[in-house]
Amino acid sequence: MPQLSTRITSLNEGGSDGWEVFYRARALVAAGEQVTELTIGEHDIRTDSAVLDAMNASAQGGHTGYAMVPGIAPLRAEIAARVTARTGVPTGAANVLITPGGQAALFAAHLAVLDPGDTALYIDPFYATYPGTIRAASGVAVPVRTRAANAFLPSAQAIEELAFEHEARSLLINTPNNPTGTVYPADCLQAIAAACQHRDLWLISDEVYDTQVWEGAHLSPRALPGMAERTLVVGSMSKSHAMTGSRIGWIVAPEPVIERLIDLATNTTYGVPGFIQDAALFALRTGDGPEAAVSAPFLRRRARVLEELARHESVTAIPSQGAMYLMLDIRRTGLSGRAFAEALLDARRIAVMPGESFGQSAAGHIRVALTVDDDSLVRAIRCLCTFAREYADAA
Amino acid sequence: MPQLSTRITSLNEGGSDGWEVFYRARALVAAGEQVTELTIGEHDIRTDSAVLDAMNASAQGGHTGYAMVPGIAPLRAEIAARVTARTGVPTGAANVLITPGGQAALFAAHLAVLDPGDTALYIDPFYATYPGTIRAASGVAVPVRTRAANAFLPSAQAIEELAFEHEARSLLINTPNNPTGTVYPADCLQAIAAACQHRDLWLISDEVYDTQVWEGAHLSPRALPGMAERTLVVGSMSKSHAMTGSRIGWIVAPEPVIERLIDLATNTTYGVPGFIQDAALFALRTGDGPEAAVSAPFLRRRARVLEELARHESVTAIPSQGAMYLMLDIRRTGLSGRAFAEALLDARRIAVMPGESFGQSAAGHIRVALTVDDDSLVRAIRCLCTFAREYADAA
Ligand SMILES: Cc1ncc(COP(=O)(O)O)c(C=O)c1O
Ligand SMILES: Cc1ncc(COP(=O)(O)O)c(C=O)c1O
Repeated sequence: MPQLSTRITSLNEGGSDGWEVFYRARALVAAGEQVTELTIGEHDIRTDSAVLDAMNASAQGGHTGYAMVPGIAPLRAEIAARVTARTGVPTGAANVLITPGGQAALFAAHLAVLDPGDTALYIDPFYATYPGTIRAASGVAVPVRTRAANAFLPSAQAIEELAFEHEARSLLINTPNNPTGTVYPADCLQAIAAACQHRDLWLISDEVYDTQVWEGAHLSPRALPGMAERTLVVGSMSKSHAMTGSRIGWIVAPEPVIERLIDLATNTTYGVPGFIQDAALFALRTGDGPEAAVSAPFLRRRARVLEELARHESVTAIPSQGAMYLMLDIRRTGLSGRAFAEALLDARRIAVMPGESFGQSAAGHIRVALTVDDDSLVRAIRCLCTFAREYADAA
Repeated sequence: MPQLSTRITSLNEGGSDGWEVFYRARALVAAGEQVTELTIGEHDIRTDSAVLDAMNASAQGGHTGYAMVPGIAPLRAEIAARVTARTGVPTGAANVLITPGGQAALFAAHLAVLDPGDTALYIDPFYATYPGTIRAASGVAVPVRTRAANAFLPSAQAIEELAFEHEARSLLINTPNNPTGTVYPADCLQAIAAACQHRDLWLISDEVYDTQVWEGAHLSPRALPGMAERTLVVGSMSKSHAMTGSRIGWIVAPEPVIERLIDLATNTTYGVPGFIQDAALFALRTGDGPEAAVSAPFLRRRARVLEELARHESVTAIPSQGAMYLMLDIRRTGLSGRAFAEALLDARRIAVMPGESFGQSAAGHIRVALTVDDDSLVRAIRCLCTFAREYADAA
């Protein structure tokens, strides 16, 4: 066998471990054991059947040939109209590229702004694929560390310093944030925007959780003065409409960027199924109701978990405002996130993600996904806190 | 706006022109004119409704969450079984990665074998995206020229020489071929295989037309001695099952390559819709009947076009054995493929692709897609030949 590319063999270099807990939990379940899985970012409901009906009608109606590579015109227009309404920045269909998922959008965005060897910054803790996505685009992935004490919000000064040191080309942010649940406030985003302008960075803004905000409001950096021309917004139907399996997302960016991204899509993906685009269009045109219905359980469960956590001292939640996760500080146990997650799975058959899986900044934390029914979730949290208490008392 | 990557701005560099004819034809049709379009590689039928029923049943049955990134196990197994049956090389599910289309498979394959700046060879004439796909992977795309007189079959010596000169890492071939319709015979493939072994090249074998063979038989280079360990086969449901819009394809490769490709997929696409995979599985399990039904019209039309061409001397067909195209030599007209296609569209409202759109080797030729109904096709060919005759007589 000839040699594979260094790019592909080093994708996961220095990568987070800690997925072992996830796979061990899966193996236990497969072996017939009862495990409460609070690991993955996926709804416990399916895609709405009305949306699937729209997909079927489109397919049976004949929309089964190659769709236009940039996406079907009405879907691009619908997304543009939403962005215009939410940001106040005039946005047209020509600013929108439909992609086969948010993940593919993140990859395409980095391919568009990075030449091989260029540095891309991203905020730590991070969604697990980020460094691999940057490396797949032959970029050098450099984390911007944050601190739990500051709710894991990035410092603009740290961004500027790292950008200068590495001559970075881009910065990737994610608000509402996975894994922390933080929603970046306006002053934080303004400082980030200033740093990007100062250091001439592209800003790649992952907003796939923009419909899951429990306190305050989501602000897209595309809305900030001077930022529309250097921001690539990544969106997706996955989280907002429980359409994870449909693999449909988008990039909103300046027109010349979208033009080039269409070239790229022609040579790398050749578009997204037309019937899935029609289903997405149907879902978006139904208005905010379905989105609210999809996110309601997370809001409700979050309240119940916070209520339960208030009764315990062994574990505290990082203040957060959105997304389907809570980040818990378990440092009082004296354990690492990884060791805690392993022990919890062994002793109590509850699976959570070690903070370390999302980067060094989240060491000593665990991420809990609010993706099981309310009562099981609260029971699991109570059990987790009692378990942590045993260690905290001993420590 | 900061600078975009050189990668994305130079995707189409030195690219074929000649797509103007295609777009002009589309514009004429949009303006209400009657045009016979013999341009695109897409069936004039839709995806079978039984396949779409299977997709709907899967989606409504709840297969709407993230599917396993490598693809669902039974689909990987089904494809492996087919490959085993057709090549005689034991192939398991672990040798198969499901991708969102053949195009995405071609891109992933090149990402796996090329580091930035590495050379990838491809055969000219070529499917239009090939050089752009290689450049999107930060590779250097180097064509291996062929000659019409040799039915556009590549010479192993030319491959070896170019591989040596450029220290190439890979060679991309396509049989049955788009645009030429050529099916590479065994001796040609054996010589290519020897060249790959000699120069330690990866062989990327695009076999998306493997069900459309009208004379002789398709031979996959994976079947040749010593080649399974250096061959990445690209397949797709697009052409075989008229599922172009479903965006589902695959790569068959050595297990260690698939393992790395799964990493890559995790960070770049995150899998393929489960309901589309279930539809593909249904289609494949139905056996060879549907495939034969999808390809029958091309076989029939090809016979009728060859019959018609035999009556004319102004235009001759390149000998071919497969795929949904015929390559016609129009050099007797004294025109370039581009000039001929432009003139034909202007004068007779028939749209064909200039050979030049597929590379320098196809200059003085045009590609005719067999993708309109039989009678319209034959009428268009007759008209085209008469038109060519006027130029040939004058020349
Ligand atoms: C922050 C973040 N970005 C992007 C994605 C990818 O979403 P998609 O399903 O649209 O590819 C996820 C999925 O978990 C995510 O958490
Ligand atoms: C030779 C060749 N390879 C690959 C493809 C891409 O097919 P898919 O629809 O599977 O992306 C095509 C489509 O025309 C083709 O002609």
